[in-house]
This record gives sequence, structure tokens and C-alpha cells, in this order.
Amino acid sequence: MNRILITGFSGFVSRHFLNYLYENKKEFQVLGADINEPKIDIESYNDVLDVSFTKCNMLDADMVEKVVEDFAPDYILHLAAFSSVAYSWEHPAECFSNNTMIFLNLTNAVKNLKKHCRILSVGSSEEYGNVSKDQLPLKESMDLTPVSPYAVARVSQEMMSKVYVDSFDMDIVLTRSFNHMGPYQDERFVVPSFIRRILDVKEGGRSEGIIETGDTTIIRDFVDVRDVVRAYYGLLMEGTPGEVYNICGGKGVALSEIISEIADIVGVDITGKVNPEFVRPDDNRQIIGCADKIKNDIGWEAKIPLRQTLSDMVEIMKNN
Amino acid sequence: MNRILITGFSGFVSRHFLNYLYENKKEFQVLGADINEPKIDIESYNDVLDVSFTKCNMLDADMVEKVVEDFAPDYILHLAAFSSVAYSWEHPAECFSNNTMIFLNLTNAVKNLKKHCRILSVGSSEEYGNVSKDQLPLKESMDLTPVSPYAVARVSQEMMSKVYVDSFDMDIVLTRSFNHMGPYQDERFVVPSFIRRILDVKEGGRSEGIIETGDTTIIRDFVDVRDVVRAYYGLLMEGTPGEVYNICGGKGVALSEIISEIADIVGVDITGKVNPEFVRPDDNRQIIGCADKIKNDIGWEAKIPLRQTLSDMVEIMKNN
Repeated sequence: MNRILITGFSGFVSRHFLNYLYENKKEFQVLGADINEPKIDIESYNDVLDVSFTKCNMLDADMVEKVVEDFAPDYILHLAAFSSVAYSWEHPAECFSNNTMIFLNLTNAVKNLKKHCRILSVGSSEEYGNVSKDQLPLKESMDLTPVSPYAVARVSQEMMSKVYVDSFDMDIVLTRSFNHMGPYQDERFVVPSFIRRILDVKEGGRSEGIIETGDTTIIRDFVDVRDVVRAYYGLLMEGTPGEVYNICGGKGVALSEIISEIADIVGVDITGKVNPEFVRPDDNRQIIGCADKIKNDIGWEAKIPLRQTLSDMVEIMKNN
Repeated sequence: MNRILITGFSGFVSRHFLNYLYENKKEFQVLGADINEPKIDIESYNDVLDVSFTKCNMLDADMVEKVVEDFAPDYILHLAAFSSVAYSWEHPAECFSNNTMIFLNLTNAVKNLKKHCRILSVGSSEEYGNVSKDQLPLKESMDLTPVSPYAVARVSQEMMSKVYVDSFDMDIVLTRSFNHMGPYQDERFVVPSFIRRILDVKEGGRSEGIIETGDTTIIRDFVDVRDVVRAYYGLLMEGTPGEVYNICGGKGVALSEIISEIADIVGVDITGKVNPEFVRPDDNRQIIGCADKIKNDIGWEAKIPLRQTLSDMVEIMKNN
């Protein structure tokens, strides 16, 4: 059985990746590594997979080296990250440690492993920076002009990956993943936070309410996390080393539209009210990606419609 | 008196910067910060300057914050760095910590300071990456394609500087400094290591000898460190925030030419012999910069001829 190491194992993307392997009967030995214990029952996957967990602080290079050496993975899905743009403005150094530095610790450990191992390095659409309307949809070949500490950390990770591929012949496939959302996403993220507050209106017995937001005219290319993990699997199996792939739907949606859609699903009237404190220093007005490259290379495209994603999220959050 | 904080105070560039201030009667209160004690007698500068020293581990964000807060500098010359390309291949993570991370610690500390302070962020010509002959001389506006971990760390530092300037209105001036050399440079660096070995031939009483080298056909744009510190002072006083300046001579010289010149100064015949172990994984064939921007903006240009630099270096090393 091939071995996959998943870092950031206790996060919501990893959970969906495991589900993908399980539901599609992809038999793997999986080692999950995370600083936090997983919230799922890993035993429940074990009629298809062989899943185990190890507690690991990715900032500790020796610990990372030991995990990689002991498990000797064939594949690594590197999800461990500090992925909040908002928080990166307050803690740029921490953002760098928890993106670029942990990636280096991992990559060095693999470099020292006497075995071929492919790494999927997850990047972000934030790397593109502020772009004008005529540059949309964003292609992988575009110049990058990162405008937040988070985006800079991700561009750095990407540049380092290319150095490792070119000079050490390592096998690293790269993504620029656009905003993803889906069931079990943490409520600190934008869409779940909308859902939580809209459900609060409903559950408080009201038929209408006001929620405070940042700038809801900004446009993002949202992808369902279940589509995202299918792309990750595809790239791990069939992506080209050193190449970067957008993972996106190719369509933009304004945050205000998402709020309306959720309100409609929940069955309440919602008015958004902008709180200037939630508006970020230098946010991208709109981000829409071009998904042609990944479609051409491995045949992936996003499939789950926005309405279904939001309905599934509402369903899960209602019961929590 | 204006206050300058110099990080990497115990290195050879700092020593020359102090000499520049002293010889040109630029009166400043100087605080040197370094993890190592300085090798110079700081008292000897104190009829012009007011120099003190504090031991500081730049990786310790709290310590950096305290140093900056207590001294409240008007200017920071940020020289602390891990500046060996060769070593960065072996220790990429350490290279990132000691370049990008320490820069972030410093910049954050200044961001929290309730006072205007200009930072000179020193970068490297290595940021340009492998370039073809027709792209020479390298201009600041060129695309960067860093090919070593060191170069990636420097590009990251530059990208972060731009984020800080654009989004937090900080005052950071940037350089891409080309290879510098001069008296008191550490013998681990290429030119002093040539001089040491050529002097050994002479001091061993021989009139000819062989030294092992890396690829001596590679071409670099060497600048005398005394020219470099004059550029740093000029940029601290008159550079434009958010702008990047090449600091270079605008002329290329092959390492083989430097070896011949040193042999001639010392008065011995030297044959270079390539040791493949000294050849780096993905080295730039040639680096020559365009110095027009800094000349146009602040009137700086390199003045000290190669022969004089090498003679001065030989003189110092002879007496050590």
C-alpha cells in the first residue's frame, strides 16, 4: 500500500481528503500529523484505509525529520498552514514561520529521505495580489504582486519549491488554491461566519436581521472543499513537478450574493452592514481564476454548485 | 544628534560604515546590535560619534522589540544577515530564519514605535537569478527568478518591505547589493580566501603555487565595501521609500582575473585548479549590474578601482 503523509491533519481540508479516499476506495496507508488532535474518529476509515495519527509541531525541524524518516511516505499532502490573511497583518512573522518555515522543514526532511516522495505544496490565489479587471481570469503565468504578509509567505514557499525542484531534482507539485468553503469549516472564516450569524437570527425566532460585515462588494472565486480535495488527489497522482496549478471554479461571486443565498436557504431576510473595522488594509477587489491548466493537464474541474455547498454547510451548522 | 541603529554590527560592513561616519564627521548616536561582540574598539570613534553596543539575538522578537523601543532610532542600517549562498544550499531553513524572519522582527518593532524611522533593507544581486547575456547589465525593473535558497530569502524580504511600505506607510529603502569585498572581510568569502592561499604560497617561500577553486570563469560585479557604505549612507539620507537600488560598479570581472591580479600584487605565479566539490548546484554564470538608478537619484557611483581594493586587502591580511 502506498503511503501518504498529511500535514495539518486536524483541519477541515484534511477531513474531506480522507473522505474522498474512503468513498472512492483509494487504499492508502495514511499518517496524519498535526499539533492538535484530530476531531474525527480515524478508526472509522480503516476498512478502506490504514490511518494513524502523530502529534507534530512542524516548527520543530527535528520532529518533522523524524516523522518523515519513520513513515517514509510516497506522497505528502502539505496542508499545515497559517492561512488567515486578516491575521497575517497583525502577525507577519508568525505567518512566515507557520507557512514558509514549516514548508522548509518538511522539504528538507524529504530531501534527506532516501526514497522518492512527491509533495503537494498548497499555495493561494492571494499570491496574485491586486489585479485590474482586464487581467481576469488570473492565469498561472501572470506576474505575482503579493499585497499581504500571508501572500508574500506563500509566494516565498512557491519560489523555494522551484529551487528544490530545479536544483535538487525534488518532486513538488504546486497549487494556487482559491477560497474554499464547505462543511465543517471553522467559523472564523468568512462564509461560515455569515452562516452562523444568519442561523442565529433564525434560531432567535426572528424573520429578519442585520449582520455586520467587511466590504461585501469584493468578489471571490469560491470552490467547494470537496472539489478541492479531488484536485489535490489528482495532482498528487498526475500533476507535473515544478508546475503551479490554479484550483478554482473560474467564476466570481460577490460576498453580498453569498449572504443573500444563505438568507434564502435559511429562510430569513438579512441586511448586511459594513463595519469599517472589518475592512482590511489592502484587500484585493476581485479574484477570479482561470482553471484551464488543471483541466488540460489532469482533467479536473469544479462540479459542486454554490447553492449545494451553502445548503450542506447550513445543514451541518444547524445541527451543531 | 540623530540616532542610527546598526544590526549585524560586528560584521565587516558595519566597521566600514562606522569609519565612513567618523572620517566624514557625520555626528550620530550609534547603537550597534549583534549576537557577537564587536572586534573593534568602539571608544575610539567617540570624539565624533557616540557609539554603544548591545548584544542582541535578532531571532528573538521580544529582544529586538526592546532594543528598538529603548533606543528609538531615526535610522536603521539592517546588516544582520546570513549571507552565504553556498551555505544556504545546505541550510535553507536557517537561511530563511536569519534573513527574512529577523527582518520581520525588526520591521514589526519599528511599526510599533511611535516615531518616524527609516530602515535600509539590504538585499542582494543574487535575487536576479540566472540571466542571459543579453539581459545584462541588470536593471532594478527586471523580473526576479531567484535560484538559491539565499536568493529566495532576499526576494521575500524585499516583497515584505513593499507590503510594509504600501500598507503601513513605513519608510523602507531597499538595495540589491552586488558582491562586495574589502579589508577585514572574513576568509570564508571568495576573494579573501584567494588572498589567504596566495599569501600562504608567498609566505611559504615559494614563487609559484596551485590553489583549488570553484568555477573561476564566473563573472561578478565587485564593489569595494568602502564604496558600498557610502551608498548606504546616501540611501539612508536621500533614498526613496519603497524603491530598490542596485549597488554595483557596472563592470564584470571573472574570478580568474581576480586571482591573477592578487598573484601579481603578492608577486607569485598562481595556477587555479577547479575542484568540482566547490562548484555550486545552480550558480549564476554572470552578474553585472546597472548602476544608473542610484546615480540618477542620489549621485552615487563606485570609485575605488579593483587593484586598489585588492592591494588594501593584501596589506591587511599580510599583517594578520
